[in-house]
Amino acid sequence: MLYFLNDYSEGAHPRVLQALNGTNLESTVGYGKDAYCEKAADRLREVFVCPEADVHFLVGGTQTNLVAAAAFLRPWEAIIAAESGHVAVHETGAIEATGHKVFVMPGEDGKLTPDLIRSAVAEHQTGVEEHMVLPRMVYVSDSTEFGTIYTRAELQALHDTCRELDLLLYLDGARMAAALTAEGNDLKPEDFAELCDAFYVGGTKNALLFGEALVIVNDALKPFVRNVIKQRGGMLAKGRLLGVQFEALFRDELWLETARHANAMAQKLTEGLKSMGVALYMESPTNQVFPIFPNRTVEALRKGFAFDFIAPAENDRSVIRFCTSWATPEENVDFLLCAIRALMGKDE
Amino acid sequence: MLYFLNDYSEGAHPRVLQALNGTNLESTVGYGKDAYCEKAADRLREVFVCPEADVHFLVGGTQTNLVAAAAFLRPWEAIIAAESGHVAVHETGAIEATGHKVFVMPGEDGKLTPDLIRSAVAEHQTGVEEHMVLPRMVYVSDSTEFGTIYTRAELQALHDTCRELDLLLYLDGARMAAALTAEGNDLKPEDFAELCDAFYVGGTKNALLFGEALVIVNDALKPFVRNVIKQRGGMLAKGRLLGVQFEALFRDELWLETARHANAMAQKLTEGLKSMGVALYMESPTNQVFPIFPNRTVEALRKGFAFDFIAPAENDRSVIRFCTSWATPEENVDFLLCAIRALMGKDE
Amino acid sequence: MLYFLNDYSEGAHPRVLQALNGTNLESTVGYGKDAYCEKAADRLREVFVCPEADVHFLVGGTQTNLVAAAAFLRPWEAIIAAESGHVAVHETGAIEATGHKVFVMPGEDGKLTPDLIRSAVAEHQTGVEEHMVLPRMVYVSDSTEFGTIYTRAELQALHDTCRELDLLLYLDGARMAAALTAEGNDLKPEDFAELCDAFYVGGTKNALLFGEALVIVNDALKPFVRNVIKQRGGMLAKGRLLGVQFEALFRDELWLETARHANAMAQKLTEGLKSMGVALYMESPTNQVFPIFPNRTVEALRKGFAFDFIAPAENDRSVIRFCTSWATPEENVDFLLCAIRALMGKDE
Amino acid sequence: MLYFLNDYSEGAHPRVLQALNGTNLESTVGYGKDAYCEKAADRLREVFVCPEADVHFLVGGTQTNLVAAAAFLRPWEAIIAAESGHVAVHETGAIEATGHKVFVMPGEDGKLTPDLIRSAVAEHQTGVEEHMVLPRMVYVSDSTEFGTIYTRAELQALHDTCRELDLLLYLDGARMAAALTAEGNDLKPEDFAELCDAFYVGGTKNALLFGEALVIVNDALKPFVRNVIKQRGGMLAKGRLLGVQFEALFRDELWLETARHANAMAQKLTEGLKSMGVALYMESPTNQVFPIFPNRTVEALRKGFAFDFIAPAENDRSVIRFCTSWATPEENVDFLLCAIRALMGKDE
Repeated sequence: MLYFLNDYSEGAHPRVLQALNGTNLESTVGYGKDAYCEKAADRLREVFVCPEADVHFLVGGTQTNLVAAAAFLRPWEAIIAAESGHVAVHETGAIEATGHKVFVMPGEDGKLTPDLIRSAVAEHQTGVEEHMVLPRMVYVSDSTEFGTIYTRAELQALHDTCRELDLLLYLDGARMAAALTAEGNDLKPEDFAELCDAFYVGGTKNALLFGEALVIVNDALKPFVRNVIKQRGGMLAKGRLLGVQFEALFRDELWLETARHANAMAQKLTEGLKSMGVALYMESPTNQVFPIFPNRTVEALRKGFAFDFIAPAENDRSVIRFCTSWATPEENVDFLLCAIRALMGKDE
Repeated sequence: MLYFLNDYSEGAHPRVLQALNGTNLESTVGYGKDAYCEKAADRLREVFVCPEADVHFLVGGTQTNLVAAAAFLRPWEAIIAAESGHVAVHETGAIEATGHKVFVMPGEDGKLTPDLIRSAVAEHQTGVEEHMVLPRMVYVSDSTEFGTIYTRAELQALHDTCRELDLLLYLDGARMAAALTAEGNDLKPEDFAELCDAFYVGGTKNALLFGEALVIVNDALKPFVRNVIKQRGGMLAKGRLLGVQFEALFRDELWLETARHANAMAQKLTEGLKSMGVALYMESPTNQVFPIFPNRTVEALRKGFAFDFIAPAENDRSVIRFCTSWATPEENVDFLLCAIRALMGKDE
Repeated sequence: MLYFLNDYSEGAHPRVLQALNGTNLESTVGYGKDAYCEKAADRLREVFVCPEADVHFLVGGTQTNLVAAAAFLRPWEAIIAAESGHVAVHETGAIEATGHKVFVMPGEDGKLTPDLIRSAVAEHQTGVEEHMVLPRMVYVSDSTEFGTIYTRAELQALHDTCRELDLLLYLDGARMAAALTAEGNDLKPEDFAELCDAFYVGGTKNALLFGEALVIVNDALKPFVRNVIKQRGGMLAKGRLLGVQFEALFRDELWLETARHANAMAQKLTEGLKSMGVALYMESPTNQVFPIFPNRTVEALRKGFAFDFIAPAENDRSVIRFCTSWATPEENVDFLLCAIRALMGKDE
Repeated sequence: MLYFLNDYSEGAHPRVLQALNGTNLESTVGYGKDAYCEKAADRLREVFVCPEADVHFLVGGTQTNLVAAAAFLRPWEAIIAAESGHVAVHETGAIEATGHKVFVMPGEDGKLTPDLIRSAVAEHQTGVEEHMVLPRMVYVSDSTEFGTIYTRAELQALHDTCRELDLLLYLDGARMAAALTAEGNDLKPEDFAELCDAFYVGGTKNALLFGEALVIVNDALKPFVRNVIKQRGGMLAKGRLLGVQFEALFRDELWLETARHANAMAQKLTEGLKSMGVALYMESPTNQVFPIFPNRTVEALRKGFAFDFIAPAENDRSVIRFCTSWATPEENVDFLLCAIRALMGKDE
């Protein structure tokens, strides 16, 4: 079985694993107050050019998002998200379980726009505000759940709109490295720190065993976040495992190297599919590819390849997702394209 | 100022107030365990033909809805509602504050349909259910937030769909009496008990000082609801006030008489508006009327009449709402129509 | 059956009821934004000498307390209370249901002291604060659940301790009027406003149909409280019912007159019990009396009188509670003492 | 600096790390649905002799406890714990953040007894149960936060009491292996499955990088636990890391071997301390030692050793904690005893 299922099917990049092995028997204090976490936090502040930011390392993305909701919002405040947003769809109501509503807007290719945000806010400004939640935090992801990316101008526009409407801008960077290394990207790491109130940089989907780094730029959001992390079960006892991994990931730009590979594999796959005339549900410059295949092709592919079903499509077809990662061998892409070519031949 | 603002602008129907006055100095046990509450509950079980139902009296509608969510749902379960549903829009995230998501569907004139429910459920059956909330309770209101009503066949179809999909059907009857006495209604009280797992009968919007009666038909939902009511701050110390009022409201069918009057006033208003050619945003057979007026007409009307702004409309117009109640004098309707006629003349 | 069960067994004081009757058919806006609520709020600001305070009217005490917790605290913050505190014992975990811990200290006659508060805080200052809740709000009641009262010096000391330790001081005044009119009291209404960050003045237990007035003095606690009230189901549609009642209660010092009567009845009862040599569990200068009787006396008394069982005592005895109110006729006290005298005779 | 700070100061046992290294580049499905997790779950079912149990792997202990509370309890239900219980003290209110009260009893050496449980329940059976939380789940830990252990008879008695009082028995086994290998222990793994409704077996404090295995024996508690895990941010994307580690830990009884070493180191330390006449706050047969030292001894020790401060003691003394682990070298114990001997000499 060749895996195109997701970008967290394997363990860690060898250099990350080596760092874990090399520090395994050292004794340190727990809960992320060790020197490895400190150094990794410093490195992130350097890379994202936000020397005053607070950096917290967490194990997973849903955990990070729910900590942000619990720590940043007051009970009557709500999140605005695209209806495809991870917090809206795939976190089993984690945000609501902290007591907050996620108000969804249709989204454009998984992205929010100033107009969508304005509309969401306007819907809540009807003169009976006390009877409605107060939109307070905008949730975006880059790359998005559809693999699309924001340009600097787009993120700047979101930032400006949020400032104008007194909204916090929070960016889920589970796949930030894929975005930063994608064709068409003009965002730099420091832009996230400049334009967002808080964001997280994903490690789980980019070559770590696990780990997300929550970066809080807005001073007002900094106090007591560690308390929330502990309260929500997100404080890793052997916290240094996160520090060690992030340090390795951000040494010699490994985080971009791994992402570049994932993107390259996905783009090779995209080119191959296009050349065969396969329809794509969504064009993505990052590591997710969304082809539409006849259902019997999908079934046939399942015998040798692991991938995700996304949605049914017209005419007995399905949208599926191939996801590549830092660990995807180029041969696997070749094998997959080869198999599709063969199946497409049969289908005709 | 003549009030068409809502159906809770005045106090209680004189017969209700008289019952409160007449029992004021009696001593009873607290928290709704008194004989008045018992008798009122018995009367409701009789009217709705559900001798085994549990009946709880609460002060308000949002309180009743959030108690239902907290008591009936497990943490991973969600509510399906029309996007105009009270729980989705006008309760300041009360349901989310109990930890549950409200998943909204567009709705048709404020109503859900079996197809909408099926779609909502299907969106959550994607093979990654553990990552998504589990739709578990369908929220409908009758009459709806737009004043529309369900037919028996429609409610039966919702019931059947819920049974098939293992969903609970919960009906918000804040304006149930208005629905039951509307032209076109073919539902009887006992139908609610037969077709819903739980529902509430509104008193606040139908001539009580306050009060809603939560009727729980489904045995599985009955245990410990009083504990939830207390926990959520909904247990009235002098609970007998609710029993006394509901007893008075359900004596000699006062609850239908009051609603009939409210509807009649609204229909007279509707006829008058139609005869003047005023556009209506939504046709309602109950006590809410949604005309569309030029903004300057709206502004002019504000000088003498209280009503609700609903939404901006095209061409400098607005949707507003006139709401009638058991207490609306027919002269007020005449005055309002007269004023509109005069203003419409000016507008031409 | 003669009632000594609690202070909310009857309806409203005739002057309060008259005010409700007299305004019943007036039309007003809803949700407490009417002129009656405004006037009642002004009156409370005047009586408590806090012209800048926010005043919110709620239906019940548990509702008020949970709104305070939800509105004033952040997720990691906890309440310190005496272990007999209403929030700790008799609200079905309402505070915890908002996500906050209630940390209890033993209490002295139902009261907290600076030392108890210091100890509670010290227990949470162990160098691992992130792993513990942060004590943030001190909950006291006056009169307490045992009918005892705070002196001005005691409340001042609590205030000073709270300031020093960065704690909020919140006072539950469900029975404040009983405290203010008790022998030994030297607190004035304005002291509550001066010494507390927020407090509530009870109406339910002092001659209203229902109603508590939450007074917020600390500016930092004022924003968005109405949103929390709505979210927690505590916003009364016909909010003016609260304004009308509080206006009547605070006209001509009715609130103190009613409380004085309740206290006088309880003190007469206390004197009578003492003269018979009946042991008291707790000396209370307010409207609650806690005698200890042989169980068979308790059983015999049940035939004619309603009262509360509090706790078992040694030697087949029980602590019970007689509670008096504005509505307790003096004859009832006489009857009760007479019955006890007769039963005590039998017991010997 | 020599570490006696806790039992999670180092990484993983070499055999565990080797297993992670050896499987690092394999591709598997995520979220714990892989073959490694299945095999590890099977192995646990075998070791604990509960073939029908559900086994879930989580990253940390607080996470596991809060998932249990959220999944097993209804909103009005509470946990009974010793006042030293981890859920009561050191989880930043994690249980309360799920909406549930933790009701504490004094505890005896960190342990609950049938009598304590009975008292806790009795305090909530006062005839006004609707106004109080319902005690529903008993939380115990073995070994406890003080390093003490339950005998089989004691756990059996807790079990019987819970059955009788309709309570769930939940055991926090963060340090279960230390308990099972302690002198005086007569519990076997299968006893936990027989006597508890659910329990967890700790890995973080016993030689894993991280990981706890939640074992659910009671059928009624099994449904939808994975949904709760996801909702609370506890579902590890690369879930197989947990399966791989637990498989290694339970191969050839490594889990007991590691614990035996930790206990042996602690007992050697205890014997050494006793021989020097050092007072112990609590006798523990497991891997935690609680000596009482003069404060200047404590300060002096800090220069070379890492350990925990527990509480101040009389006469300028302090209770501290030395904690040993699978990774504690025997020489370190010797060094520590040597240093103490030297300091004690100075102190006299």
